[in-house]
Amino acid sequence: MVKRYEKINPPNRILMGPGPSNVPAPVMAALGAPVVGHLDPAFLAVMEEVQEMLRAVMRTENTLTIPVSGTGSAAMEAALVNVLEPGDGALVCVNGVFGERMCDIAGRCGAEVRRVDAPWGSPVDPGAVRKALDGFNAKVVAAVHAETSTGVLQPLEDLSKAAHERGALFLADAVTSLAGAPVEVDRWGIDVCYSGTQKCLSCPPGLAPITFGPRAMEVLTKRKTKVRSWYLDMTMILKYWGPDRAYHHTAPISMIYALREALRVVLEEGLEKRWERHLRVHDSLVRGLGKLGLSMLVEKPYRAPMINTVVIPEGVNDLDVRRRLLGEYSLEIGGGLGVLKGKVWRIGIMGDSCTEENVGILLGALRKLL
Amino acid sequence: MVKRYEKINPPNRILMGPGPSNVPAPVMAALGAPVVGHLDPAFLAVMEEVQEMLRAVMRTENTLTIPVSGTGSAAMEAALVNVLEPGDGALVCVNGVFGERMCDIAGRCGAEVRRVDAPWGSPVDPGAVRKALDGFNAKVVAAVHAETSTGVLQPLEDLSKAAHERGALFLADAVTSLAGAPVEVDRWGIDVCYSGTQKCLSCPPGLAPITFGPRAMEVLTKRKTKVRSWYLDMTMILKYWGPDRAYHHTAPISMIYALREALRVVLEEGLEKRWERHLRVHDSLVRGLGKLGLSMLVEKPYRAPMINTVVIPEGVNDLDVRRRLLGEYSLEIGGGLGVLKGKVWRIGIMGDSCTEENVGILLGALRKLL
Repeated sequence: MVKRYEKINPPNRILMGPGPSNVPAPVMAALGAPVVGHLDPAFLAVMEEVQEMLRAVMRTENTLTIPVSGTGSAAMEAALVNVLEPGDGALVCVNGVFGERMCDIAGRCGAEVRRVDAPWGSPVDPGAVRKALDGFNAKVVAAVHAETSTGVLQPLEDLSKAAHERGALFLADAVTSLAGAPVEVDRWGIDVCYSGTQKCLSCPPGLAPITFGPRAMEVLTKRKTKVRSWYLDMTMILKYWGPDRAYHHTAPISMIYALREALRVVLEEGLEKRWERHLRVHDSLVRGLGKLGLSMLVEKPYRAPMINTVVIPEGVNDLDVRRRLLGEYSLEIGGGLGVLKGKVWRIGIMGDSCTEENVGILLGALRKLL
Repeated sequence: MVKRYEKINPPNRILMGPGPSNVPAPVMAALGAPVVGHLDPAFLAVMEEVQEMLRAVMRTENTLTIPVSGTGSAAMEAALVNVLEPGDGALVCVNGVFGERMCDIAGRCGAEVRRVDAPWGSPVDPGAVRKALDGFNAKVVAAVHAETSTGVLQPLEDLSKAAHERGALFLADAVTSLAGAPVEVDRWGIDVCYSGTQKCLSCPPGLAPITFGPRAMEVLTKRKTKVRSWYLDMTMILKYWGPDRAYHHTAPISMIYALREALRVVLEEGLEKRWERHLRVHDSLVRGLGKLGLSMLVEKPYRAPMINTVVIPEGVNDLDVRRRLLGEYSLEIGGGLGVLKGKVWRIGIMGDSCTEENVGILLGALRKLL
């Protein structure tokens, strides 16, 4: 007997977890635009626009600025696997899940990995990075800008300087920060930077913007070995996104439409205004949480505005509160990851989810539930 | 000055190239359903349904049957990178672009690659495969079912037998064939099989179904080295798709909705009926092309019904005809790849694009243009 399936019918949620965030109507509409071929002139024009707009949002003039056909973690892998060859040194700043992930991936690239750790919830100290670089031949220094697992916003400029002083590339994970806080790829000297679509860009998950600067491009072209991943091999992918239009893999057409529209919406609001909005709503949220007697995991100067880690008060059942928020308010917040599991909630105010109204609904709900 | 971008507005096309194919209305509607979190109970239910329906469409009872968060080529890489460790033997059947691609990827996995070639447009001879397996310690034998670059449908059962006789796994690329021609994963003893969403499943490009059978799972669990790709590491991904629900990477929610709906549409039509439809429309197309004096590249018994390679007559300008089809009829067909560039057209009749009406429009247009 063949099982019958109904049409899909997911609920409307207020998405205030670590991503995805709520998707604005024009982006949903773009997702539903007619699919065309990946070499159709109409699609090639969309690709051009996506590249132009990505450069504007990432604050860079890098030619190689494209969306990877995968999620943020695919871009993390793309960043590392293209730069690193077996035996290369990689210095990774680790203060959360995503720093750990970078170490894992760099190791799979055959790199020698050295790590600089900071407690989860604190930023990594540039002095410690400089010290670790002594006597270590690092090809790349890698750090996470907004650690989604802890809510820390890592200052990047000094790390970038430290890397360049020793002749290393500087690689930054801007998955959660891009379009929600300043990410100045060119001004800060970030050689490889990547993001994800489902955070402050407010596009569904599935693509991951990435950019490689001139120093990184030189490393790519001087490789002695093939990139370990065919799918993420940037010099091949560039031939499709560049003037050659050589087929590599079939582009995810509908998602690229959506990203194009999400970028358009971001630029229409204005990048600076968008950063200010995230900061303003973050301030409201933190003030409101304080009034409820809740405290933040991260110290004020290092709080990422778009991802807020709140300490769960003693005696409060983590899962129970999150289940009731979802069941009674159709509102999602995130739980803790790794060592922070059960100890914090992660409240995302990203892109379209970042409104005073949403913060009001969440605070009202928490007031009742706690 | 800030450049203004208009809302996205791609044209409606009749997609008769090598994929993407036209997407039916319920699948487009699913793509536009509200985005929820990747651990939302509503989404976990969708994941369960996707796995159930994928097993039905792939004709398998394999537990590990999921969509890879990338396109068909990501699934090719996932198949090879999970099975192969440095020094392992990989025997690859090559009679087109995608066999070549498998060799490239297997090499990047550190495998020793041996290839069995056949002319582009002909199937690979199982006798030659058996011979090549003599004195070669192959861990895997890999073949492409429907070679999208040549239009050959490779019989798989005998190759599968040959692999198993020597204790090797059998890996099949069903990117273009799945849901357009019989793909019997369990009955044919295929140990690893993958596909793409944008061909006969008639879903937008961006996901790639994959399945690993018991023999392949044993290989995965007995690995001595880490999988070279973190993003495609199946034992980690399985922890998210299995009962643990452990976070690996954020699932591409909207695309998984679309795939869920595409699978529902396929099963509603019925798999056997869908195969018959592809064969029937293929017969019409070949007959019609014959009446126009056009001949097929591939001999009758080895023609893949869903991807048809037609020899471009002497004196006819390849690009000119394809441009006019697109410009005057809004109809896309594909050009040749690699050694077949400029020599053949590739006419896809996949999924929703596979109708007598579309074939009629194309034949009418070709009659005028040639």
